[in-house]
Amino acid sequence: MNKNRLEAFSDGVFAIIITIMVLELKVPHGKELASLKPVIPKFFSYVLSFVYLGIYWNNHHHMLHTVKQVSGAILWANLHLLFWLSLIPFVTGWRGENNFAAVPVALYGVNLLMAAISYYVLQTVILRKHGSDSVLAKAIGRDLKGKISPILYTVAILSTFINNWIAGGIYILVALIWLIPDKRIEKTLPVEL
Amino acid sequence: MNKNRLEAFSDGVFAIIITIMVLELKVPHGKELASLKPVIPKFFSYVLSFVYLGIYWNNHHHMLHTVKQVSGAILWANLHLLFWLSLIPFVTGWRGENNFAAVPVALYGVNLLMAAISYYVLQTVILRKHGSDSVLAKAIGRDLKGKISPILYTVAILSTFINNWIAGGIYILVALIWLIPDKRIEKTLPVEL
Amino acid sequence: MNKNRLEAFSDGVFAIIITIMVLELKVPHGKELASLKPVIPKFFSYVLSFVYLGIYWNNHHHMLHTVKQVSGAILWANLHLLFWLSLIPFVTGWRGENNFAAVPVALYGVNLLMAAISYYVLQTVILRKHGSDSVLAKAIGRDLKGKISPILYTVAILSTFINNWIAGGIYILVALIWLIPDKRIEKTLPVEL
Amino acid sequence: MNKNRLEAFSDGVFAIIITIMVLELKVPHGKELASLKPVIPKFFSYVLSFVYLGIYWNNHHHMLHTVKQVSGAILWANLHLLFWLSLIPFVTGWRGENNFAAVPVALYGVNLLMAAISYYVLQTVILRKHGSDSVLAKAIGRDLKGKISPILYTVAILSTFINNWIAGGIYILVALIWLIPDKRIEKTLPVEL
Repeated sequence: MNKNRLEAFSDGVFAIIITIMVLELKVPHGKELASLKPVIPKFFSYVLSFVYLGIYWNNHHHMLHTVKQVSGAILWANLHLLFWLSLIPFVTGWRGENNFAAVPVALYGVNLLMAAISYYVLQTVILRKHGSDSVLAKAIGRDLKGKISPILYTVAILSTFINNWIAGGIYILVALIWLIPDKRIEKTLPVEL
Repeated sequence: MNKNRLEAFSDGVFAIIITIMVLELKVPHGKELASLKPVIPKFFSYVLSFVYLGIYWNNHHHMLHTVKQVSGAILWANLHLLFWLSLIPFVTGWRGENNFAAVPVALYGVNLLMAAISYYVLQTVILRKHGSDSVLAKAIGRDLKGKISPILYTVAILSTFINNWIAGGIYILVALIWLIPDKRIEKTLPVEL
Repeated sequence: MNKNRLEAFSDGVFAIIITIMVLELKVPHGKELASLKPVIPKFFSYVLSFVYLGIYWNNHHHMLHTVKQVSGAILWANLHLLFWLSLIPFVTGWRGENNFAAVPVALYGVNLLMAAISYYVLQTVILRKHGSDSVLAKAIGRDLKGKISPILYTVAILSTFINNWIAGGIYILVALIWLIPDKRIEKTLPVEL
Repeated sequence: MNKNRLEAFSDGVFAIIITIMVLELKVPHGKELASLKPVIPKFFSYVLSFVYLGIYWNNHHHMLHTVKQVSGAILWANLHLLFWLSLIPFVTGWRGENNFAAVPVALYGVNLLMAAISYYVLQTVILRKHGSDSVLAKAIGRDLKGKISPILYTVAILSTFINNWIAGGIYILVALIWLIPDKRIEKTLPVEL
């Protein structure tokens, strides 16, 4: 079946993105505990991005589970999402390298915003193919989380003009909001999940 | 089934190639917006290569979908294609690093040309195995796009002797030509796709 | 089926972690045999981590084989395990780069300890979903190995205050204990395995 | 089915090994054709290793196709093979970096020899599980290629004491010998392949 290969390819890209981020944690030269110090902000930057990619993989997994027909539009909307996610290691590294300075933190938010938009586009393309009576349409419902996230990202990006720590707090907040995302679809699809 | 593993392996290679390109986007040392400046040409170089690899994956996906029997010749023609695609991150990085200078832009074209030829070889090998009545044969038809692309790449390579920007325009043009490639096969295989 | 994608994604991450470790073996500049000398401790560090990841993949493979229903909790417990495993290349590289100095060796143990705990959490979550009569519950039995390993890792971490070589010996010992891990499940599931 | 996951994991590792080798082709700093000069030996080193990994993947693919039951011994013999193959990018890079000097060329041969031995071990473990009447046993027959290769690698390693180019010729010769490897199994399994 066609969908399998779309899933397999996406899983491959997800797996690689989530893993190559760790290459940004450069092995320090010293052998004392103190030499780990510059790695610490990078580590926390990595943890948050790992959680975000986990959330995206998780939601992607549930969304594709409801797909019955794959069209060219779905293929490209999916690649578009993967494109923005593939930049996460870059912005994660920049943010960690500069100890959460304003501009890197803002760029991180821009990347999250673009990923959220491209996820929304993919969802819309799938819904258009499967109709408003489909399992996915019911599972998403009013899509409150999907609508709040881009607003919060925008607030976070703008907040970096004032203070670089507000944005970090907002990114953690959005991750927490999403951390139990599949409840919606799990409720509608109790058997398979 | 045998074909599955060929697809799985190819998907793995595609996923890795498309993702490790991002490692060429080296995290800048400064924390100002200005320090992103040297990354910008690399970013655009990445975008185009991402689109090209997406097109190849998409077409590869449709072509293999029609394959019924895998032979040693198909396995090796497939590896040959993956070989040339695996060099894309290298030429993408070189072109981006040098702000689209003539020689790197020409080499990028040579790589695209070799990939196009190896794709054509793979297609020929599959057609020989499946006959001119096969779904693939009907879907390809006169294969206009497949014939125009190598010519355009050759023009692009030669154009770098005159000006380094013509070639970039041609690469974008070829990508646009291919961006809706599956229409041909989708028409012939309306149900599964 | 749902479980397949969880396995495919995990396999992808396992495959990447186990392979990118080799990138820490930096190609030496000289061309004499002597120029390989700084690579040797890194090589042994790589071998042990390769074995550990092989053990984890092997056990993960057997454990997931018994899973019938995937829940959100299992997905996240699995990602949590993959997170700690993804840090193995970093601690492996640091330990190898510093010729098995005390602090890097201790950090390696902390990482193994966290991985063992997260594996235990995943196992518990799966058991809670499948009941104490399940194949997995029977296969694990008293889980002697699972209980001894964290104790041994803790001893190893503490031992680095005295001598940096004791810990290395303990890590090898734990690997040997686990090297024939599937016997338990293989006995309970003789046909499929 | 159990075997699928062994294949999927192996395919992942194969795909990553074959692709990360390209990371050793470091993007040159200059933008003239001449700046590609140091990349050329690395490129040829890459081509040969790509072909070798293609041969291994191809043979692995055919061998696992005949496997009916996966045991712990097969899992570990497979990981052992993947371990030696995972070092190919390192020895490829070293050989290319030093323009095919004697010691790197010899080490490349040692790696190929270890890979050949571990492949033979895997084959033996599978045969022991499936019996001498199995499809694999018939397909392998007297296993002439499998016996000649280690001898040729040993000759190549020893030849580097005299001249560093003989070994390169032998490596190419062995690759050519194997390039049509599936004929044996294809003959026995005409339908599926």
